[in-house]
Formats: sequence, C-alpha cells, structure tokens
Amino acid sequence: MSLLIRGGTVVNAEQMMRADVLTDDSGKIAAVGENLAAPAGAEIIDAGGAYVMPGGIDPHTHMQLPFMGTVASDDFYTGTAAALAGGTTMIIDFVIPSPKQSLIEAYDTWRGWAEKAAADYSFHVAVTWWDDSVHRDMGTLVKERGVNSFKHFMAYKNAIMCEDEVLVNSFSRAWELGALCTVHAENGELVYHLQKKLLAQGINGPEGHPLSRPPEVEGEAANRAIRIAQVLGVPLYIVHVSCKEALDAITRARNEGQRVYGEVLAGHLVVDDSVYRNPDFRFAAAHVMSPPFRSKEHQEHLWRGLMGGNLQTTATDHCCFCEPQKAAGKNDFTKIPNGTGGVEDRMMVLWDQGVRTGRLTPMEFVKVTSANTAQIFNLYPRKGCIQAGADADIVVWDPEGTKTISAKTHHQKIDFNIFEGMNVTGIPVHTISRGKLVYTKGDLRAVQGAGRYVDRPSYAPYFDALEKANALKAAKAVERV
Amino acid sequence: MSLLIRGGTVVNAEQMMRADVLTDDSGKIAAVGENLAAPAGAEIIDAGGAYVMPGGIDPHTHMQLPFMGTVASDDFYTGTAAALAGGTTMIIDFVIPSPKQSLIEAYDTWRGWAEKAAADYSFHVAVTWWDDSVHRDMGTLVKERGVNSFKHFMAYKNAIMCEDEVLVNSFSRAWELGALCTVHAENGELVYHLQKKLLAQGINGPEGHPLSRPPEVEGEAANRAIRIAQVLGVPLYIVHVSCKEALDAITRARNEGQRVYGEVLAGHLVVDDSVYRNPDFRFAAAHVMSPPFRSKEHQEHLWRGLMGGNLQTTATDHCCFCEPQKAAGKNDFTKIPNGTGGVEDRMMVLWDQGVRTGRLTPMEFVKVTSANTAQIFNLYPRKGCIQAGADADIVVWDPEGTKTISAKTHHQKIDFNIFEGMNVTGIPVHTISRGKLVYTKGDLRAVQGAGRYVDRPSYAPYFDALEKANALKAAKAVERV
Amino acid sequence: MSLLIRGGTVVNAEQMMRADVLTDDSGKIAAVGENLAAPAGAEIIDAGGAYVMPGGIDPHTHMQLPFMGTVASDDFYTGTAAALAGGTTMIIDFVIPSPKQSLIEAYDTWRGWAEKAAADYSFHVAVTWWDDSVHRDMGTLVKERGVNSFKHFMAYKNAIMCEDEVLVNSFSRAWELGALCTVHAENGELVYHLQKKLLAQGINGPEGHPLSRPPEVEGEAANRAIRIAQVLGVPLYIVHVSCKEALDAITRARNEGQRVYGEVLAGHLVVDDSVYRNPDFRFAAAHVMSPPFRSKEHQEHLWRGLMGGNLQTTATDHCCFCEPQKAAGKNDFTKIPNGTGGVEDRMMVLWDQGVRTGRLTPMEFVKVTSANTAQIFNLYPRKGCIQAGADADIVVWDPEGTKTISAKTHHQKIDFNIFEGMNVTGIPVHTISRGKLVYTKGDLRAVQGAGRYVDRPSYAPYFDALEKANALKAAKAVERV
Amino acid sequence: MSLLIRGGTVVNAEQMMRADVLTDDSGKIAAVGENLAAPAGAEIIDAGGAYVMPGGIDPHTHMQLPFMGTVASDDFYTGTAAALAGGTTMIIDFVIPSPKQSLIEAYDTWRGWAEKAAADYSFHVAVTWWDDSVHRDMGTLVKERGVNSFKHFMAYKNAIMCEDEVLVNSFSRAWELGALCTVHAENGELVYHLQKKLLAQGINGPEGHPLSRPPEVEGEAANRAIRIAQVLGVPLYIVHVSCKEALDAITRARNEGQRVYGEVLAGHLVVDDSVYRNPDFRFAAAHVMSPPFRSKEHQEHLWRGLMGGNLQTTATDHCCFCEPQKAAGKNDFTKIPNGTGGVEDRMMVLWDQGVRTGRLTPMEFVKVTSANTAQIFNLYPRKGCIQAGADADIVVWDPEGTKTISAKTHHQKIDFNIFEGMNVTGIPVHTISRGKLVYTKGDLRAVQGAGRYVDRPSYAPYFDALEKANALKAAKAVERV
Repeated sequence: MSLLIRGGTVVNAEQMMRADVLTDDSGKIAAVGENLAAPAGAEIIDAGGAYVMPGGIDPHTHMQLPFMGTVASDDFYTGTAAALAGGTTMIIDFVIPSPKQSLIEAYDTWRGWAEKAAADYSFHVAVTWWDDSVHRDMGTLVKERGVNSFKHFMAYKNAIMCEDEVLVNSFSRAWELGALCTVHAENGELVYHLQKKLLAQGINGPEGHPLSRPPEVEGEAANRAIRIAQVLGVPLYIVHVSCKEALDAITRARNEGQRVYGEVLAGHLVVDDSVYRNPDFRFAAAHVMSPPFRSKEHQEHLWRGLMGGNLQTTATDHCCFCEPQKAAGKNDFTKIPNGTGGVEDRMMVLWDQGVRTGRLTPMEFVKVTSANTAQIFNLYPRKGCIQAGADADIVVWDPEGTKTISAKTHHQKIDFNIFEGMNVTGIPVHTISRGKLVYTKGDLRAVQGAGRYVDRPSYAPYFDALEKANALKAAKAVERV
Repeated sequence: MSLLIRGGTVVNAEQMMRADVLTDDSGKIAAVGENLAAPAGAEIIDAGGAYVMPGGIDPHTHMQLPFMGTVASDDFYTGTAAALAGGTTMIIDFVIPSPKQSLIEAYDTWRGWAEKAAADYSFHVAVTWWDDSVHRDMGTLVKERGVNSFKHFMAYKNAIMCEDEVLVNSFSRAWELGALCTVHAENGELVYHLQKKLLAQGINGPEGHPLSRPPEVEGEAANRAIRIAQVLGVPLYIVHVSCKEALDAITRARNEGQRVYGEVLAGHLVVDDSVYRNPDFRFAAAHVMSPPFRSKEHQEHLWRGLMGGNLQTTATDHCCFCEPQKAAGKNDFTKIPNGTGGVEDRMMVLWDQGVRTGRLTPMEFVKVTSANTAQIFNLYPRKGCIQAGADADIVVWDPEGTKTISAKTHHQKIDFNIFEGMNVTGIPVHTISRGKLVYTKGDLRAVQGAGRYVDRPSYAPYFDALEKANALKAAKAVERV
Repeated sequence: MSLLIRGGTVVNAEQMMRADVLTDDSGKIAAVGENLAAPAGAEIIDAGGAYVMPGGIDPHTHMQLPFMGTVASDDFYTGTAAALAGGTTMIIDFVIPSPKQSLIEAYDTWRGWAEKAAADYSFHVAVTWWDDSVHRDMGTLVKERGVNSFKHFMAYKNAIMCEDEVLVNSFSRAWELGALCTVHAENGELVYHLQKKLLAQGINGPEGHPLSRPPEVEGEAANRAIRIAQVLGVPLYIVHVSCKEALDAITRARNEGQRVYGEVLAGHLVVDDSVYRNPDFRFAAAHVMSPPFRSKEHQEHLWRGLMGGNLQTTATDHCCFCEPQKAAGKNDFTKIPNGTGGVEDRMMVLWDQGVRTGRLTPMEFVKVTSANTAQIFNLYPRKGCIQAGADADIVVWDPEGTKTISAKTHHQKIDFNIFEGMNVTGIPVHTISRGKLVYTKGDLRAVQGAGRYVDRPSYAPYFDALEKANALKAAKAVERV
Repeated sequence: MSLLIRGGTVVNAEQMMRADVLTDDSGKIAAVGENLAAPAGAEIIDAGGAYVMPGGIDPHTHMQLPFMGTVASDDFYTGTAAALAGGTTMIIDFVIPSPKQSLIEAYDTWRGWAEKAAADYSFHVAVTWWDDSVHRDMGTLVKERGVNSFKHFMAYKNAIMCEDEVLVNSFSRAWELGALCTVHAENGELVYHLQKKLLAQGINGPEGHPLSRPPEVEGEAANRAIRIAQVLGVPLYIVHVSCKEALDAITRARNEGQRVYGEVLAGHLVVDDSVYRNPDFRFAAAHVMSPPFRSKEHQEHLWRGLMGGNLQTTATDHCCFCEPQKAAGKNDFTKIPNGTGGVEDRMMVLWDQGVRTGRLTPMEFVKVTSANTAQIFNLYPRKGCIQAGADADIVVWDPEGTKTISAKTHHQKIDFNIFEGMNVTGIPVHTISRGKLVYTKGDLRAVQGAGRYVDRPSYAPYFDALEKANALKAAKAVERV
C-alpha cells in the first residue's frame, strides 16, 4: 500500500520545499512534488504545518550487548521499536568479537540476534585482536557481508583494547578493502592507572568514574588515532566525541583537509558531570557510560563542533542497563556496567536544543541526524534523503508539538532516562519505515522482524579522492633532489 | 526545444548517479532519471563517460568596470560568453557607486550595461559611503530589485574604503533586510602607508605591489570584519581570501560556530608572488590585482581551506585590463589598474588541480564551483543543482579531455592569461544555458542578450537560525543575578 | 642610614637563595650575600621565614585623573602611599593630553601633580590625536624627558579614540625613537553602537556596561593593533587584557615569535561579571571600569596566560571614584566614571591566588609583579631585582601572614574595594623604598614627596634585535626572481 | 690561579652590562663588577669589544655510545674537548641500559667511561623497561647519585621503545622522586610499519629514512607524552623537537599553562631534508639521525618556537659515526647508525643564525644555550650564569669574528660536518672551564680528565608549584554536588 504525505515541508540536507511525498508498495519513495495525486487505495497523511524529513539514523547502538557480565536490556526488537517512536528508522549496531573469537562467527551471532528488529539495521564490526584470520575475515565481511566499517576500542585494557600495533594493522587492511575505520578514543593505559589509583585512595563510588577518564585521556587517544590515520593515508571516524580536547584534535585535522569524521551523542550535548557527584548511587550509576558526561563548558564546544561542521553525526551509544544491573558496581565504580539509553530521545533533544535555539537550521538538523551518517557510511541516497527512489524511511515532524521526556512514558526497556523531565518542543507525529506507518500520534505499531539488514557497499566516494592524493604524495616523496 | 543528455554521470553536491537529464522549452530541467525517453524533436547529447554537472557560478566578476581611470576590457557580452566556453553559466557582478552617488542610480546603470550578457547574472551592490539615502536605497534594492548582498571595501583609502562606522551601519541595515554582507578585506590605512613608504624608498615597479599589501594586512581586516559581524549577530562573506592569515580568521570563527563564508580565487590557488619580481614589466603588471598573489605556502593552505570546508566558494574576480591599460603604472605601481581575467578558466583549473590531485571529490567540485554559492546567495535549488525544476544551466564535463590554457586561444577579451601554458586535464564539452546549447566541443554559440537578470530573494535559510540565536543571547544577557 | 635585611630568602626572577640584603645611604642595594655584617648604625630587619623580593611595580595607574567630568579620588600621594602599604614601590602612571593639547604641556602638568608622590613613578604619555607638533613632541619626550612608552586608546569615540591613521603614524614615530607603544584595546565604534542600542532598548543600568563592551570588541582591537605592529615591525604592549579573545590574539602572535607583551589586572583575574547584574546600583557601579569584568571562564584563561608566559605583567588600572562620583551615571550607565582601585591589593591577590594555588613559583611571582615590567619598560636591573647596585625598593613578604581585604581597613582613598572580604594568605611585612623603611607590620610611614620621577631610557634591548630582523626582511623582499 | 676578564660586556639571561669578571682558585667566579682589581698573579684576559657569557651547556650528547652494532666515534675526552673549542663547557649525556639491564650497573659503566672528560658532565638515565628493580634503582640514582632526569624512547620498537605502560609507571615514579622525565617523541609502531613498507617497495637508500619517520609520527608521540604528563600532573621535557607538529603540541600545552619544555637541535634549525635525496650515499647517510632533518618550512617554525619561548633549550644530539660505520646501511637505510656531530658548532650556528638575524637578543642567546637548561635541570645558578659564586664556566665571544665550519678544521672526531662550509660570524675567542683557560684564539688546551661529574639535585623549584596545583585539583575533584 502506498502512502501520500500531503501538505508538508520536505527537508533535505541541502534544501527545503513545500512538497508532497508518495511512497510505493516496495517501500521506496515514488515521487516528491507539489500537488501529487493519490493513487487508488493510498493512505493520506496530513503533514500540514509539519516538516517531512528523512527518518533518523543512529550510527551507534548496542542492543542486547553482552558486556561486563550482563546483557543490555533493550533487545533488537524493543530497541528499534523505541527508535521508531522517536523518529529514528535505522540503527548501526556493533558486532564485538571477544579476543581470539572469529569475526565471522561473532558477526553471524549478531545477525541472528538482530532478526527480530522492527527497523532497518546494519553492523560495524569491532577488531579487538589481530592475526591472519582477522585479516582474512575482514575481507570476507566487506566483500560478502555488506560491512564497510570496523570499530577499534583504545580503552578497556586487558579486555578489548587495541594497542597501536593492532590499529596500524587493521587500519591498513581496512584501507585495502575500502572500509572505514572507527575508534572509541580513550587512552586505556591511563584509565587503568587512574582506576587503580582512585580505588587505592578509597574513591570507589560513581564519582570516581569521571575522575578515571578525564578529557585529556580522550583527547590523547583521538589525536593518536588521527595521526595514525594521517600517516597511513586513510579516513577515520571517531565515535562519541565528548569533550573539547577530542573535538580540537578533529578540528585541527579537518582544518588541514584530513578526512576525519566525528560523532557526538545527544547525552553529551546536554547532560553534565555533576550527575556523578549525586549522593544517590542509583541516580549516579545510571549515568555511568564511557566517555563520561563532562563539565558544562564542554557542551558548548560540542554544539559549536556540530554548527561548524567539525562534528557531522549524532548518535546515542544506546546500551541499556537497569538498576539491578548497575548495582554490580555498588562498591566499585569500575564494575558498574557502562551504558545509558536514548535511541528514542535523540531527535527530540537535537531539535529542541539545536533547532529551536538557532544553532541549526532544519536542513542542518537533517544533516546531523541522518544525511551525513548515510553519506559517511555509504548508504546515501538510499537512506538519509527524501527523493524518488530512496527508501521510504520518513518522519513527519511537528515543530510546535511538545512532550516531557520520562522513563515512565518512554518505550525504551530501561528504568531510567538521562533526559528525565526535559520538556521538548518539536516531536515526531508519524514515523514511516520502508513505506509502512509504524508510529502515528503516540501509537507505536512496530512489527517484530520487519526491519531488514542493510548492506553497505565499500569504497564510499571519498576513497577515490584519497587514493589519488596518496599516490601523488608517494610519487613526490621519492623525487631526487 | 528540449535537450536530452544521455548516458552521463550526474553529479550534485551530495550525490553522483548514472542518469539522463531532460530539459524543457522553458529552460528548466524537466526530469533526471535512468533511461529517459527523448520527446519528439529533442536534441540528444551524448554524455557517455562524462560528468553532467550544474553550470559553474562565478560570484565575483567585474565586467566593463570603470576603475582607476580606465574600463575593464571584457564587457558583459564578451565576458559571459567566455564564461560559457569554460562551463560557467552564471556570474554575480558588482554595482559600485561612487561615494555620494545614489545606490539606485548606480544599480540602474549597471543593469543597463548588463543587458547584453550571454549568460545569467545578478549583482552585489557596494556600500561605499553612508547617509540616510543609502539606508533607504538598501531597502529598495532588497525589496524591489532582487538584491540580497552588499559589498564593502576595507581598502582603497581616499576612494571607496569603508571605515568601521560605515561597516557597522551597513551591516546592521543589511541584517534588518535579510541581506548578506560581503567584504574585501585589506586594511586600507596600512596599504596607504606602505605604498607611500615604498615609493619614497624608490620601489615603484610591480615588485612593490605585494610589498604594499602583505598577508597581515588582509588577515587583520578579515578578523575585524568577522568580529564586527559577530558582535552584531550577522552573517558574513569574505571575498577573495588569498592567504593563511585571512583563512585562519575565518577558520577560527567557523570552528566556534559563527556563520562566516569564504571565497577563494582560482588564481590564488595556483599562481605565486614570484611573478611580481619578474623583470618584464608587462608580465609583472599583468598579475597586479588585490589582494596580490602570495608565496607558495599560502596556496597549500587555501586548498586545505577548500578541502576542510572553511572556504566554500571559488571565483575569479575577473576584471580584465590589457597591456596599454596596465602601462599607466609604468613608473608607479600604485597606478597599475588592478585586475586579471579567469572566468573562462576557473572550472578547468579547479578540476585539474583539485579533483585530479585527490583534494576534492567530483561532488565537492560541484559544491565549490556552484552549489555552495547558490545556497549562500539564496539561489538554490534554482541554480547549483541538477534536479527537476531547476534552471537548465548544465555543463557536460570530460574528465579525460585535455587542453593548454593560453591567451592565444581563450575567448576572454584580454591579451594575457595568468594560467598561460597550464596543461589541464578535465574540460567542458558542452555547456547549456537555460536549456540552450551554447558551447559544444569548442564551438561557442553564445547569444548577446540571452542572459537574464536573476532576482535573489532575501532571508536565506540561515537568517532564521541566526535570529533565534540572537534573541536567545539577548534574553540571557539581561537576566539578573 | 643603611638597612640590613637578615635571614630571609631572596627571590629574583631567575633564582631564590638564602641571603641577607644590605642597603646604603644613597638608597641603593649595597650587597646581597650570606651572613653580611651590619655596618655601624644600620637598622636590622629580621626576615626569618620570609621572602625578600623586589618591590612591586604597577605599570598602570591613574592618580588624580580628570575623567568623565570628575577627578580620580586617590592623588599621587595617597595612591602611592597605599601602594607602599601593599608592597608596591613604583607606579607608571599616564599623561593623557586632550585632543589638540600639546603633549609637552600635558606632561608638565602631570609632573607637577606627581611631585607629592611617596613612591617612585614614571609616565606613559598618551597620543590622542595627530599633527606635526605631536610628532615633534614625542621626540622631545623621549630624548629629553625620560619617556619611553606611548599609550593609545582604541575606544572612547568622540573623545580620545585613535583611528588606524593615528595608530600607524604614532607607532612609526615611536619606533624611530626607540619607544614602546601600548594600546587600550577595545573597538570604540562597536562600543559606541552598542551603547546607543542598549540605551534605546531601555537598558540604562550598570548591567548595560558589560553588554556594551563584550569580549569580541576587545579581541578585535587587540588583534588589529598587533597586526599593525607586525606590519610596521615594531614591538607592542597591550594593557589590561581581560578576556580569552584578546589573550588569544597575543598568544598567536607570540607563538609566531612576534614581540608583543600583555598586561593583566588583578581584578580581571578574580572578579567576574555577575557584579554588574547586582540590583544594588552602588555595588554594581563601583565595578564599572573598562574593559569590564568578564564571565568566570575568562579568569582561568588569564591565569593560563600568566603561567605560560603569554601575559608578562600585572597591574591594577588603579583609578578611584567614590559613590557620589559614580552616581553621575545613575540613569545612564555610559555616564558612570570608569575606574576601580587596587594598587594596594595587587601583590596579595597575586600571591594568594597565584602562588598558593601552585600556578606560579615565587620566582614567577617576582617576574609578573616587577621584573618583567622593569625589563619591558627598560628599567631593569635598576628596578625589578635584588642585586648590588639596584635601587633599594624591597618588600619583605610573609607567606603565612593573613589578612582580610576591606575598604574599611585599606589605605586607598576610595569607599569601596573590589576584593572586599577576600581572605588572603601571604602579605607584606616590611616595604622599603629607596632604602627607607616606609611600611612595617601595619605601620605606614609614607612621606609625601619622597618619591622621585624615574627616567626610562629609550631603546630597550629588544629594539636592536627587531632592527636587525626588519633590515633582513626588507632586503629579502626586493630580491629579484 | 685566578683569571681577570677585563673590559667585556657580561651577558646573563636577564641583563647585559659592562663588567669585569674575576675567577678564583677553586674554579668559581669571585666577583663581577666594574673596574675590578687584578689579584697578584692573576692572568688578564682582554675582552674588549667582546661578550662574556656563561659557557654553553649541551643537554643532549652521546659520547662513545654503543649503538646499532658500533660505537660512537667521539669519546668523552675528544667530544668534550671539541665542545670547549666551541664555547660549550658542560654536557649532559645519557646512560642507556639495555632492556633487563640494571640501571645502576649501566650508570656505573657510563661513569667509568666519562672519567676522561675534559669538561663538566652529568647524566640523564634512560628507562627502557620496567620491573620493581627499575623502580628501586630510580630512587637510588636520584637520592645517591645526583641524577634528576630520566629519558624515555617512544621509538625503536623491539629494542628500547617504551609502551604507554612503561611511560605511566616511570613518570609516576620520577614524580615521587622530584625528577624530570624526558622523551624522544616518535611513534615507534608507525616507524616500524613504514620501514617495512618502504623496504618492501624497494626503497632502501637513505631517502627512505625521512619517509619512515614523517613529522606526524613525531607530533603524535609528543602530544601523547604531554597528555600523559598532564593526567599524571608531572613536568615533561621533550628532546630534539624537529617539526611544526611536535612544536604545536608543546605550544598548545604551554599556552594552557602546563609545565612542558622543548629542546631543539642546532642541526634541525638550519639543515633541511633535501640532504637525504642526494645521490651520494656517503653524504646522505652522514645526515641520518632521528628525528630526521625536515623540509625547510619546519625550520622557520622552530626558530619561532625559540623566539616565543615555547622551545627553551638548544642541543646537538652529538653522536658521531664515520663513513665506515655508516656503510653498514649501504643496502638498507634502517641499518645506518643514527647520529651526527655538532657539539663544537652549536653556539656559533645559534649566534650566526639567531642573534645576527635579529631573532634573538644576546640575553636570549644565553637563555637558550645555557641558562634555561641550567634552570630546567636544576643546576642554576651554579651553571648558566655569570655571577659571584657560580662555577667559572665562561665563554668570551667575539661577535665580529668569522669562521668557516668544516670537518677539515673541527676538533670533533668525525669525518663529516653537517654545517660544512657555513660561514659564521660570531665565534668564541676564549673558553674557561672551572676557572681554567682551556681554549684561547684557536689554541685548544683541553685536559683529559679535568672535567667533573656534576650532581643535579632533585626537586627543581617548579615541583613545589606543581604539587600545590595537583593537591588543589584533587581536592576539588571529590567535592560533592
């Protein structure tokens, strides 16, 4: 059945215009234009006064992740359903092999778990160790499984942390395959040292968490990954940039023309680190994630990063743990499972604090909530834009609608919301996933298993430019005097 | 008659795809898609192996400008015809009133001159003095004449230079009108001082020109204009950024989220200041323009500015003076008419040195040669993109075609070419202006008077965001303790 | 009579050592060494547990300044006496001619006023206008009157503001004379515009003061003055740097090797702009000075500037106005006389917030309170160090002594203290001026007229290096290709 | 016997003055002053027209170092003798234990080798591995052997490279002891990767050397070490800063007030990387050292670093290998012993290119050739200044004397000179070491074994400030909300 979204203002990354949008049976957008005629049987959606935008893409989620001895509480169904309720129609989750585990085996496991997803999804695959099989499996994943990005953790020593040797090997291999490398940037050695030192000083509550991961630790790792990428001549994507120091490293590189991308979480934009000094363990622990929330001045820097284009994407690192799970770290903050929710809230937080404050135009909102992500991860224009031929992943947005965010009313399977009590103006009215109306005016109609795995082709367009630049540099380097 | 451009790769700012492009009788693009059928009587253009891109927009030209006692040699017909031969289908020229002259009167004069243009055109209007009539005329120009940008010269003391008082008044007035301010950033007081000093030292040849306008002079003015704009809460566009110092000022502002735009000339990207020390006066004088060409290290910085997005547009400052005109400054470099050509060459220089070197993707090439200019000056998507409904201003580009740039073969009415002898790969094969094939494989079919004046609406989309941001800032400022 | 200061730790800019200090009859230091013998009749001062440091030099005061229709309440006697009570043994005040007034005439007037000073003093002379007589008088002042620095106000439009033309002329002239230029960096045009706008909006209380002089206004002017100095090849000193923006301009220049110096006021380091939003007019108005106090984040930047050496000197801009004087601006903040006190408090505030916090070593404290000032203004080693042959201007400092700063107990002739209630640790115990004990344990023995005018020779050592660098640059510039 | 240096201009870090200098029998300076009387038997040295400055201190030499299968050709006698001929009166060399070797054992070995030194010397000790014995031995070295600085190599994988874990442990331990950490900043993992890649591409000549160690590799490591130091709250010294990237990392940190120091080699200031592309293997290989010489633009940045104070010391990394030794890498650039000479040339190169160009004043020359080093490594004022009580290590400098640097005439035991053919103006006339005239007008009178080991006390003055700052930060961090 087709849908005709009538009377709205279509917003894409580069333009806004009054236009109707028609979807077709295959879940694609059939037409975008003024005064489109409704085909027989088409459902009409009134978008008068509303914006019609690409559905959000959250490039950083962890549904049902096994982590720190427990499993994240939102699974691929509940998590993607919540996403749809918030106007987000696709996630990119992470396959995280244990050290020594086959990448393919891990990938297959995650694919199995994700079959129940209600929205489209894809996977970054983490490289947590190195040998010839990892080298080979990366090839298989890119060439046969639709993976075009690999993740590297620079923190979590004695677990999944990559030393420089793994980074250099994996970055080099990914480049051969036309795949993008991403990093979690924190210096794991320093975190490990600080954790031991704080515990030895008797600081074992959640207030120790941010002290063990100060901004310098993130800034160092971001800079290191960027410089390694620069030397190897490869593109790089840094996840969850939370502080001025890491942003500065990205900004310096981008100002020099390096192809480096940065992601920021909705939470880091609006929540500050005073939460960790709250005497209520439940409250403080519910905010434990890495990198931690930062002092207020960092928030303004992150917003400026988004405004100036040095940060391109927004995400949530959605990874839910409930009170009983968080309690594992009651006497030792290093044992509190790291993670918070937000996949449902991101778009509203961004609109309220981004567009209504004048920091972002509606077009820039589309860039940072979907279009840029689709371009960087080579899904564009299938995803991230409203045009004929694109997937019909659409959100109809009421810029004057209001809502109070709360764990009591959200759809996320977690007993806490880091945005609790925030009154937002600007909310999704209808969400359409692959041409189906899955959320409409508070009514969530998510269907378990309706989401599909999205193959992402390798060699995004910027690879070709980088290859030319690398070749030219190599030729110049060996010219004789 | 309609045209069907068949078999090419359509390149827009955000995407590339194999698609045909069909134009209609009204000079618009009728359709973009795969395997389009040719309407009866349509002319078929074979674009196999070629890129189909928006025609270039040069936002900085001076056709038949009366300046320094002479008149620029390319008029609106010859200049726009040359533009078409190089794939550029629109120019934005400048109305420059004399101090005390009515802005409307000057505007009408320029409109009269431009009627013979072969390609579309529009006008920035310079504010070179201030009184109530200027304030009033700015309103008339914006509301009734399709002007949405005003130019300010911070150099040329005792002529058209604006002191801060004029900048503050004009920036404030333009903001009320939803118009964008642009500046020529050079500290005119310092230029004046250095000119006198150099002449007193007996340095009166062209080698004195760059010495009288060092990069610091431009960096200072750029920073000043940016900070004035910041304090007033208005957007700003800086023309012909030629050096690291000015780029740095823009970069700092953009990194902080300020809405500042920067333009770079094709010439500044590839020509260096050694030309002024050439003992042949004719050669040296032919390169005299302001800001001058800079030492080589600045070029790499400018390219990085384009790559990192801190510079958004490319232009030429096309303003032609031939040898007899330049001779006026034979014994005094300050009397050499300032200006060089390039409107025909810009696209080729940018492709050869930008795309073939891997600095820019083809999509980024489109951004910096047309799309960004169209967006900043609120012409998008009428201009600057290939999509149904847009003006059919199109260039079909052969990425493997080659050419040697030379004054002997160019169409520009000037006896010199600053890119003389440059072998470029990547050239226009066909140029289409408002649906008419005006250049095809070396055959220039420009028609005098075929170009039309393009109204540019005020209040580009970023004005709305800035208004919100300003209102929020003002409200916060007066909160009591 | 000579003094023997026994048992203390002598602190100079570059070294600390246990040593006694002996002064002679002529007011000079006779010897510095271990176990010095006391000459007959010498007074012994016990410095056990104390630091023996050069007396402070405050390079920025305005005693009995006629300004905004009134006269500053501390005159040269009361002001310098208060300085001695705080460990400061020399001030550099300002001669400020009215536009069109002869510089020599103004200088003579100030010299007359200053004869009653209790501590040593010198004068910067302001250049507030330009003609040939100013050019000539600058020469007379440098060659015959011991002046080696000139001041320029970039703010106060329609009064003493310098446009770029005056700056360029005066900077050039001062360079010929071997004199240092200093600037008050605020863009006066913007201040004027904002004042008018705020008053028009009905914002006429002291809260309007900082809104009319935001940090960008200072940052712009600082950058402009620096770039003008760079182009002219002259050194520059920026007074009362109050914000990150101005500091950044200095830092950029210094990082590039430019000889630019920056001064910071004790007030700007510890007082923030919330004072202006206090509903009590008296309190708010008492803080009105320019540049205004800034939001808290600027303070940390200023401290970093001192720590990193990008700011070299500390001062107060001591210019006292009492409640009845401030009342002139009751209904219009632009009429509140600009100025606050502090010459007595500076050293204690710097020690308490600088040394005790670990930001500065005691040697660095000496640098920023006296030695750097003496070097920059070419008074070193006569002033600013403890060594044989130097003037015996000495403060004996108890690092554990405590005090609460208050208008009730201070010696400054003003009914307000911007540091009111601040509990400082680290206070002067004895102050010695030209070999006389003028303050000892709370007993102020200042003698009216005991201070002497200090000639400052032109051509500080950095002039020679700059001359060489300028000559080399000029020679390179005209090399042929 | 005492020496009386008569009629010169004494130059210290903070002041210049006409004064005579008298030394005593114990090798100390007895007096500095005008018209000093010559004691009986004193030798008179005429310093008319000359500068009398502290002898140079080279904080980075490797005499007779066993390295890459051979031993550096200048031993402690020949090397220090050459130093004296160039006006350098002290070196700080390096003890470099093999991994697993006892630090004490290595230290004793080096002490033995150094007994034949002709000038004073001291040792940094390298930490190249970690276990409890290293922790213990660091304590012994600081408390009992006069060591106050430790060196860490971030390059040389599979040999002496420190991973982050060693850095964190050693930096923490050194802090407890009041000792300064220094690093050789190059990312060893990247160097290793690039070496393998270049050899695989068939690039095995010396031109491969700089390609395997590009500036980014150094910038990354410098930034990493700085951030680790910041997190741990310790001071840091970076040896041989050779490029803009590393300088920028230092500059950023210093601008924020961090206590980070940077050293630059005379070679990096004036030699560029074109030497490696010279087809003569002997010539190219003679320049192989790490970090390599850089392209010309880096040199100007390094000079600016010195001028702005972001680099504080100059050194040489003097480590001589002759042609037969360099030949070991004939077919594989990774096997060419790394090292060049220069301990004799540094002062002349710095004067000629630093002082005569106007980049540095003579006082600044003293800072960067001796005083700053003495302060940072806690030798001041025993070394690095001309004042009564200081060691009589003095150079009498003729600013107009000239010389052509050449391997044919230098005293260094190496068959090559990287400054070959450089005509310098400004040369040492007399060098005095501990009160003995050891070089006079070309006559080198160095005495084997006359040099003494110099104990360097721990806890330089900046440690106390850092401790206060760390304590304050720790206290604030755990404040409850």
